[in-house]
Amino acid sequence: MRINIPKDHPRAESLRIREKLEEGFEKGLVASAGLIAHGRGEAFDYLLGERTIPPASQAIRTAAAMLLTAENPVISVNGNTAALVADEIVRISKSAKAKIEVNLFYRSTEREIKIKDRLEKAGASNVLGVSREADARIPELGSERCCVDSRGMYTADVVVIPLEDGDRTEALSKMGKKTIAVDLNPLSRTSQKASITIVDNIVRALPTLTENIKDLEGKSDLELERIWKEFDNTKNLKKCVEIINKRLTRMAKEAN
Amino acid sequence: MRINIPKDHPRAESLRIREKLEEGFEKGLVASAGLIAHGRGEAFDYLLGERTIPPASQAIRTAAAMLLTAENPVISVNGNTAALVADEIVRISKSAKAKIEVNLFYRSTEREIKIKDRLEKAGASNVLGVSREADARIPELGSERCCVDSRGMYTADVVVIPLEDGDRTEALSKMGKKTIAVDLNPLSRTSQKASITIVDNIVRALPTLTENIKDLEGKSDLELERIWKEFDNTKNLKKCVEIINKRLTRMAKEAN
Repeated sequence: MRINIPKDHPRAESLRIREKLEEGFEKGLVASAGLIAHGRGEAFDYLLGERTIPPASQAIRTAAAMLLTAENPVISVNGNTAALVADEIVRISKSAKAKIEVNLFYRSTEREIKIKDRLEKAGASNVLGVSREADARIPELGSERCCVDSRGMYTADVVVIPLEDGDRTEALSKMGKKTIAVDLNPLSRTSQKASITIVDNIVRALPTLTENIKDLEGKSDLELERIWKEFDNTKNLKKCVEIINKRLTRMAKEAN
Repeated sequence: MRINIPKDHPRAESLRIREKLEEGFEKGLVASAGLIAHGRGEAFDYLLGERTIPPASQAIRTAAAMLLTAENPVISVNGNTAALVADEIVRISKSAKAKIEVNLFYRSTEREIKIKDRLEKAGASNVLGVSREADARIPELGSERCCVDSRGMYTADVVVIPLEDGDRTEALSKMGKKTIAVDLNPLSRTSQKASITIVDNIVRALPTLTENIKDLEGKSDLELERIWKEFDNTKNLKKCVEIINKRLTRMAKEAN
């Protein structure tokens, strides 16, 4: 399946990310539904111009401030996240003193262990949520999608949810948790229900998040809290939609 | 991987299509890159409201007229098309007297044979382009993506290309062929380079195309030619972008 990607290909970066994901699929980290979900992301990233737009930068800075004031932050990791940004997850975990928990939409112990291994290879020392360790339940969620680790997401005050589904985001919010989502569709239920939504590709957003955490490290809790209390997620999401609209209009004009 | 889809789920139809595609993947008809491509389509279909928009209906009628005046029409079929709409492909082939040719982005004789089998199961009598039958080359296209059947796409005057890539669409146009694309992204290179672009999901567009062929069957060649000669693909694509823009704006408003 590998093709040589010419360096000057207009969408070379997007193709490289896709290759990484397909590699993750071949290794058993990524589910087939994860490939489809990635495609949806690609379409929205194309609409954003495959760059970090200003409202995303603002959301990333706010997320860094929120993580630094959290008591028990947890980063939720699924197959796509592990395949694309395992190293960055570990870096954020260390700089924000956040736990890492595996959390799959389609649970499979085999895949959970592979994801855990990938994260440990990247330097993670304690990966939660694998198999029976997911011993607690998020209320109102059906079947296996509700299982979380009582030492992790269940007792967390802030949860970072890259590539999460809408039901689970909503359920976490109802439990009173603050949620930081990374989602390329500003209109998805995840985007609308999260406390802070970073409308950006995880491969760009997470390194920037690490930088922002380092940049804000010296600030007082009061200063940090002010940053995220002043943030209006709804307004920020509207700005993202406006940017997509403008770009679509411009692309349609330029098409001739 | 199968989940029960509740009938009242707001995106039940989209989930059912996805299941069909995953089934095709498990059977070896669909490539892993095809799953990602499907995800991109899902995102654009979501932006269209998962319905056939008026400019798509107009493009479908125009395509029907073009097919009925064609001398040697050919329908190009890839893995996703075979998995999702094999029956419809055969129906169109019969009503428009069009040949069917397998044409994959990632060539694999094994997959070509599986796709041929699927089409024959749907009633196709002569499926072209499998393995060494793809004996002719589209000029200017690299590697294996250029191979076509000399009895099919190579000598065709009109080619139906559901889910085609931009390079190949452009190369077919340069060979002087008329192309009818089905593509959910009105700004893709395929959409921009095709003679007629149907911005719609193939599962909705193809049955409507069959209906339109039947409806126009009695008309004279002069009447039919007038229909497609009056059609302006560029204008039609702009209308699609406007519809997406309006919908995005409305969704952003309703999100609160």
